[in-house]
Amino acid sequence: MSDETQSEGLTCPAPLMKYDTIQLSHGSGGLLSQELTNNLFRPAFDNEYLSRLDDHALVTVGSSRLSFSTDSYVVSPLFFPGGNIGSLAVHGTVNDLSTGGARPLFLSAGYIIEEGFPMADLWRIVDSMREASLKAGVKIVTGDTKVVDRGKADKLFINTAGIGLVEHEHEIHGGNLQPGDDIIVTGHIADHGIAILAAREELSFQTSVQSDSAPLNKLTLDLVETVGAKIHAMRDPTRGGVAASLNEMAAASSVSVCLAENQIPVRPEVQSACEILGFDPLYVANEGKMLIIVDHSSAENALHRIRQHEYGKDATIIGRVTEGNRGRVVLRTALGGERIVDMPVGQQLPRIC
Amino acid sequence: MSDETQSEGLTCPAPLMKYDTIQLSHGSGGLLSQELTNNLFRPAFDNEYLSRLDDHALVTVGSSRLSFSTDSYVVSPLFFPGGNIGSLAVHGTVNDLSTGGARPLFLSAGYIIEEGFPMADLWRIVDSMREASLKAGVKIVTGDTKVVDRGKADKLFINTAGIGLVEHEHEIHGGNLQPGDDIIVTGHIADHGIAILAAREELSFQTSVQSDSAPLNKLTLDLVETVGAKIHAMRDPTRGGVAASLNEMAAASSVSVCLAENQIPVRPEVQSACEILGFDPLYVANEGKMLIIVDHSSAENALHRIRQHEYGKDATIIGRVTEGNRGRVVLRTALGGERIVDMPVGQQLPRIC
Repeated sequence: MSDETQSEGLTCPAPLMKYDTIQLSHGSGGLLSQELTNNLFRPAFDNEYLSRLDDHALVTVGSSRLSFSTDSYVVSPLFFPGGNIGSLAVHGTVNDLSTGGARPLFLSAGYIIEEGFPMADLWRIVDSMREASLKAGVKIVTGDTKVVDRGKADKLFINTAGIGLVEHEHEIHGGNLQPGDDIIVTGHIADHGIAILAAREELSFQTSVQSDSAPLNKLTLDLVETVGAKIHAMRDPTRGGVAASLNEMAAASSVSVCLAENQIPVRPEVQSACEILGFDPLYVANEGKMLIIVDHSSAENALHRIRQHEYGKDATIIGRVTEGNRGRVVLRTALGGERIVDMPVGQQLPRIC
Repeated sequence: MSDETQSEGLTCPAPLMKYDTIQLSHGSGGLLSQELTNNLFRPAFDNEYLSRLDDHALVTVGSSRLSFSTDSYVVSPLFFPGGNIGSLAVHGTVNDLSTGGARPLFLSAGYIIEEGFPMADLWRIVDSMREASLKAGVKIVTGDTKVVDRGKADKLFINTAGIGLVEHEHEIHGGNLQPGDDIIVTGHIADHGIAILAAREELSFQTSVQSDSAPLNKLTLDLVETVGAKIHAMRDPTRGGVAASLNEMAAASSVSVCLAENQIPVRPEVQSACEILGFDPLYVANEGKMLIIVDHSSAENALHRIRQHEYGKDATIIGRVTEGNRGRVVLRTALGGERIVDMPVGQQLPRIC
């Protein structure tokens, strides 16, 4: 392999890209993130696993079906009400594995640390990872630490990757939404994004909102065991919020989605913060919520099960999958009107996770 | 979970650490890296998998034995003679999985990109990952992209994690060195570290040395299939070089190691560069070499097999495992003397991988 890597049959997709340099929005979970995935990563790594575009890959190794997922965490600040980058890095990957109904088992942890980072802070973060992994029932089994010179990284970034065991035979993925399905969200939305914003020093507003960062694997496993094949899809609405997740799944399933605004659980203090900051809660990140798309016949049963769980007490049905193959997400407003909830475009909140 | 994470039964190990902030040497693969692992990460994530201290974890999922590994790559510069951060990120994790004799199957890829990074460079790097993964026979099946503001990361960092299938029942790990074993290195050492140093703009010296970055999984799998249980350990001597890898394995196995200086393959131009820069090649990073510790009775057979492979043509026996439970690595010099080859201490080469 030479310095000048030669493509064989693949040409640089730069002409297909809207920008010729990376923008903050390429990491926001919105349209530019999609463009990067669809025009750059997918053509390069073309394979049957990536093509499903879920937040995890379903792979077969030996005789076992596994879920495999990764996320890097660059959240700023590192410590925030409700958690820190360490607990977030455990919960995030546990939840990505959970979206396919897998049982998360093992995590890796890769640290990129800026020279001069306080050892005591590293310990607090690692200790939170310990606590979070104990609570989620996963083991951190392998890791790596890199240190870069001062000014070459912002304090600490963590990558976690995870392996889960898929013990069911159901089709639970973002391309499996069926008209008539109900859409459940497991609790109040937009807490994480607002908590992070409030924690940023440059913002003057104060709020009591805490991040919802939490492991959802017990909830999802219980659901898969009891409601089984009637669960059609699950997704944790992180970057880009509920809006991005529903748009992605609707498009992948060639269906549309109708949401009822007055059913969507938003804490009053989150609603207020969103109004002050000019955000729509549907676009704000969550780190302890799951969207669960379930056959209408099993929706009440699923809701009942979900509400038994620590992180599902405020679960509610927020909408329904509808006919219409254009992947549209429509919101019925409290006033009786309708508006389209598009994929997020342009600058969202950087470094929210 | 609250902002102030509470330890339960674990206390902060800061008093055990030599420094109260992270130093570049904590990422160098030497003594401070060991301290971080042994005093901070291991007590936190205490489990039977981590305790083997190999560069991968051996886990059982369902009925399959898997190898699981991760590495973050922060190499500077991103492009260097013999590869770039993308090919390096594929080879590195493939090789870590190979150290246990696993068959690498699937990789994840997590990107942390600085705002403003050129799209064309990202494509060159991703295309190298495609090429490297094709050559190694692995699939990149899941990924994640984060973007941070200008100045908050240095261009691009990549994390890869990997899953391999372990199809053998042998004990191949760093704690399994036996007195009398031969130590094989699969080719010339120190090429990668010297190539990176030469590529750094601030360094004025020029050399024709290329990085040895390469996938070693075909070589190691062949060896496991043909030499089998006579292979006692394998390790790719990356950060900290041959010296760190042999010290770690000798200590883990409670044996000592004796190396013959005149048997260690070092290219003349690498030797010259090391002399100019004041480095010992034994401490310089490799990214396409494997140390293979094999029962003496099978050493010649193993060497013969290794030399059939593209990346093993210059393999040679460089030393032997000896009695003596102190984990010492001793070098017999060309002049007939002896010197101790310690674990690297203090500042090694930052951002070499």
